[in-house]
Amino acid sequence: MCELLGGTTGKVRTYGSSMKRDIIAQDEADRLKRHQDERGFTAFKFRIGAECGRDQDEWPGRTEEIVPLMRKSFGDETALLVDANSCYSPAKAIEVGRFLEANGISHYEEPCPYWHYDQTKQVTDALDIDVTGGEQDCSLVDWKRMIDEKVVDIVQPDICYLGGMVRTMKVAQMAHEAGIPCTPHAANLSLVTLFTMHLLRAIPNAGKYLEFSIEEEDYYPWQYDLFVKSPFDIIEGNAIVTDAPGWGVEVNPDWLAKSTYKISSLEG
Amino acid sequence: MCELLGGTTGKVRTYGSSMKRDIIAQDEADRLKRHQDERGFTAFKFRIGAECGRDQDEWPGRTEEIVPLMRKSFGDETALLVDANSCYSPAKAIEVGRFLEANGISHYEEPCPYWHYDQTKQVTDALDIDVTGGEQDCSLVDWKRMIDEKVVDIVQPDICYLGGMVRTMKVAQMAHEAGIPCTPHAANLSLVTLFTMHLLRAIPNAGKYLEFSIEEEDYYPWQYDLFVKSPFDIIEGNAIVTDAPGWGVEVNPDWLAKSTYKISSLEG
Repeated sequence: MCELLGGTTGKVRTYGSSMKRDIIAQDEADRLKRHQDERGFTAFKFRIGAECGRDQDEWPGRTEEIVPLMRKSFGDETALLVDANSCYSPAKAIEVGRFLEANGISHYEEPCPYWHYDQTKQVTDALDIDVTGGEQDCSLVDWKRMIDEKVVDIVQPDICYLGGMVRTMKVAQMAHEAGIPCTPHAANLSLVTLFTMHLLRAIPNAGKYLEFSIEEEDYYPWQYDLFVKSPFDIIEGNAIVTDAPGWGVEVNPDWLAKSTYKISSLEG
Repeated sequence: MCELLGGTTGKVRTYGSSMKRDIIAQDEADRLKRHQDERGFTAFKFRIGAECGRDQDEWPGRTEEIVPLMRKSFGDETALLVDANSCYSPAKAIEVGRFLEANGISHYEEPCPYWHYDQTKQVTDALDIDVTGGEQDCSLVDWKRMIDEKVVDIVQPDICYLGGMVRTMKVAQMAHEAGIPCTPHAANLSLVTLFTMHLLRAIPNAGKYLEFSIEEEDYYPWQYDLFVKSPFDIIEGNAIVTDAPGWGVEVNPDWLAKSTYKISSLEG
């Protein structure tokens, strides 16, 4: 598929992406370390603040603890990314951002309520660290504005939330013309991560890595045996886009047979 | 209710609002005339262009015909409003707007695709006629931007689309602070028009009139006998907000008994 999109098969660097906030700092460091030992990830994302948290942390002191602990737990060759999921006001976001910069974090996702572009832009303008966002944005009009106004340093469309590959490639192209890299959002090991692998091999402004969920049975129990052969083997921290036909996967008929179906239709 | 909202009971000037495009100019003039004779409306809105029409008319020449015919059919004391329902590009919208101005039309609704604020703003800036819009906008962030950037001369929130009275009053207040009148959207004789009557008696920047559907059995067959006693009697072109308790109506139990019910719920 990536060749049809104008790209080539091959490797895609990934970052191991934690979905958890309700995890103490040492446990998070330990499990990311384990994933690095097992699969060679060269980058990880962890979470700070509380989701839409109005400047509050998941619990007091968690962010202040986890950021330096992560930096200490991994060598400088491991990139560290954080996601604030709309936690902060601009002033607090800038303060936290300086703390992240001091700890060698390189990617600061969704510092402010995502729908307030003007708040996010204040943070982007104030900091050196890459401020990133866009997973929630589904309107091409909003995307144009976000890119025209340089609200973020890196755009993060989600292929499935945004309405498919063609619309996402439009956003990537708009960003490319503005000199902005595209590091899509892909929060689980369903088709969205597969689509994103192909996209990243096909666009000129692909960001540094593919988001790759490290969550397991307790968090995504449905993800096992989804494909006859998983396209998600990670080798030395890279996912591989192969030349197998189409998306390169066959959805497991047993998995489908056990699934519930939901049909949405539009009358008219 | 309007007293709880800070207003007073009394009259609300209405405009008779046509929902139809698929009607020839003379028939539209004739039926609006009939509604004026029956209920004394002092203002009417009719439709021009095609809905989201990309500069095309409902059929060639309809807009050029209906605008002067309406002006000729009604005295100058009858205000005439038009709705383009996202039909035009900015250049075409401005051209049509000048034609409307030349024909004494006083309200030009949704000239451009409503989601392109920059396009609508070009039209607002170029014309003297009141350019209006906002029925589709449901985000307070978008509303703030629409008002801050003076995208339209008159805002038209829909109380039900926007999410209720409190949110609509927030929009009305934002508009008030910017010196912009509020003429809400209310497209049928269900609760939305009743809510809007109360709102218009309660806000300081109420626009000139209440939108009041003139559609009948063929278009809104469900609207009959919805209330035990209709709150929608029009006297000399005015609706009346009474001091009856609450919204001043009782929904007809027979109407409810014949209705289908739909429950939407959010899991979590």
